[in-house]
Amino acid sequence: MRLQPQAPFLGGDGPHTNVVMSCRVRLARNIAGFPFVNRANHTQRAEIANLAKTVLLGIGESERMIWVDLHQSPEQDRDLLVERHLISRQLASSDHPRGVAISENESLSIMVNEEDHLRMQMILPGLQLEAVHERLNQLDDAVESRLDYAFAQRWGYLTACPTNVGTGVRLSVMLHLPGLKLSKEIDRVRRAAKDLNLAVRGYYGEGSESAGDFYQISNQITLGKTEDELRRDFHESMVPAIIDYEQQAREMLLRRNRIRIEDRVHRALAALRNARLLGVEEAMRHLSKLRLGIQLRLINDVDVRAVNGLFLQVQEAHLRLHQQDDTLCEDGLLEARATLVRQALAGGSST
Amino acid sequence: MRLQPQAPFLGGDGPHTNVVMSCRVRLARNIAGFPFVNRANHTQRAEIANLAKTVLLGIGESERMIWVDLHQSPEQDRDLLVERHLISRQLASSDHPRGVAISENESLSIMVNEEDHLRMQMILPGLQLEAVHERLNQLDDAVESRLDYAFAQRWGYLTACPTNVGTGVRLSVMLHLPGLKLSKEIDRVRRAAKDLNLAVRGYYGEGSESAGDFYQISNQITLGKTEDELRRDFHESMVPAIIDYEQQAREMLLRRNRIRIEDRVHRALAALRNARLLGVEEAMRHLSKLRLGIQLRLINDVDVRAVNGLFLQVQEAHLRLHQQDDTLCEDGLLEARATLVRQALAGGSST
Repeated sequence: MRLQPQAPFLGGDGPHTNVVMSCRVRLARNIAGFPFVNRANHTQRAEIANLAKTVLLGIGESERMIWVDLHQSPEQDRDLLVERHLISRQLASSDHPRGVAISENESLSIMVNEEDHLRMQMILPGLQLEAVHERLNQLDDAVESRLDYAFAQRWGYLTACPTNVGTGVRLSVMLHLPGLKLSKEIDRVRRAAKDLNLAVRGYYGEGSESAGDFYQISNQITLGKTEDELRRDFHESMVPAIIDYEQQAREMLLRRNRIRIEDRVHRALAALRNARLLGVEEAMRHLSKLRLGIQLRLINDVDVRAVNGLFLQVQEAHLRLHQQDDTLCEDGLLEARATLVRQALAGGSST
Repeated sequence: MRLQPQAPFLGGDGPHTNVVMSCRVRLARNIAGFPFVNRANHTQRAEIANLAKTVLLGIGESERMIWVDLHQSPEQDRDLLVERHLISRQLASSDHPRGVAISENESLSIMVNEEDHLRMQMILPGLQLEAVHERLNQLDDAVESRLDYAFAQRWGYLTACPTNVGTGVRLSVMLHLPGLKLSKEIDRVRRAAKDLNLAVRGYYGEGSESAGDFYQISNQITLGKTEDELRRDFHESMVPAIIDYEQQAREMLLRRNRIRIEDRVHRALAALRNARLLGVEEAMRHLSKLRLGIQLRLINDVDVRAVNGLFLQVQEAHLRLHQQDDTLCEDGLLEARATLVRQALAGGSST
């Protein structure tokens, strides 16, 4: 299983990438004539997976699609796909015929036999939901031309979980909010987001912690609004408001207590450059401060792309892949992670 | 008040300075014809101080003695003398006629009107208690030739507190025990020391914490043993045993978990070189690890003398003196301390 060195969900070039790592649109679709995944038996699930595989490998136009048969693949590959946000933990740990189709640049992935028959997601760096949406719609149309979707005139697209019924669209952005975290305003933003019917989740989605000060914010209502209304509200009003809060928090921190921010940022870089044993939580925490420091121009000798890449590379499955060693013990992982980070951030002294 | 840049109690060249920062002998003496300090009135205390001042300024032979009138001196000067271990906190904060005579190199100091009329101490770097004892005895003889000491044939020299009666001698060593601390063996050593009738105290003596992994170990029995017996037991048996434990602990740490020690040491240096705000406790903790790292040859670009000096310079009164600013607020101190340490340890990157 080959994977790109960089993952689109961790940003790159795009609008507002100082706060918005990436944006994502997800569609839930089911194939007519089959029960929902949780009601289907083994044979039916295998049929769905085979059908989906054939259709999805056939629709790649601008770029090649690859298929990963998750029922056959080793645990480490599945963990790797979870860390890259290409499949959910739930899909990784299931035990039935299932798979994922992934575009070569990893922007697009379609999980098969997760909660729904098809869960399609498109990710692009920065805030560009319209582009994402447009490309995902093209895919949706291409798939629909070869498959009958489960659809009811009255409800729209049918999905296994009622919260997705209707357009079946979920929009989300991965935000980096170290300013709001440091200024302890994050809980206020969480509450405000909840009042606006937005879900706020951690780095790995539902139930995960906000490692590295990353927050996934997504819309929750799908019924009763058109896709355009949903997207416009989210893209033009809600997300920009949070970006604005974060920018204000960063400026406030610099203005009111510049030395304290400098202290946090330089200590974080120093720890990353000097630790000999490094846990993933600690690494994420320091990388977050470092990314903030680069954007505030407090750190000038580190490339933000190296930092974005490290958020991924410090994860356990990526680290094992890098080490080419499945059997590393806990201490071995801590040491390998420290070495990897130290080498990636080597350079001028940060004094 | 002029003070030397380096203080003898923080080590330098001498035997076993990798563990023994310094050794100290203290004598308690009282002048015949005056009540003990706690029974004397203001006039009597003033008389004692004047008499002592005259005698002590007269006995300096090889080097000049200076006299500090603590009843007149500003609080900052007194704090400075406490940080240099030249006077006790108790003497600094009293409010009656009192003073201290100090030799120019600060090896010798005589507190006047502390618990006893005279508390003489001699400090030398490393473990060389005989040399210390000899020089202090010469001083004691010189003083006794000009003053009548309170003495009883049956008890020996009389002192305000019965635990000092007899020879009036207290021996102590300032040990740096980061190995025993890291390997969590320090409590076992504490208990063993207690069984041997040794007192184990922190960096500032009685009741103070073991900041920087420093421990003052001193003998507690004075009655019923000759000075020579006391010194021999302490110098030739007890202290060497503790030095040995510490060395074993360091070697064991290196052998069993070298990477963990490297991690601690390099993180400590990195924090010292990169913090923008630094508290005294944190500074002491990191300096201790750094000193250990230098002695274990894990760190090669830092001079241990710079580290020894910083243990003193990060203390509040020293920092204020260095900044020439009595009015620094708490945050100002944190910032000044970080800047001082960063500059003192600047140099090659520690990656």
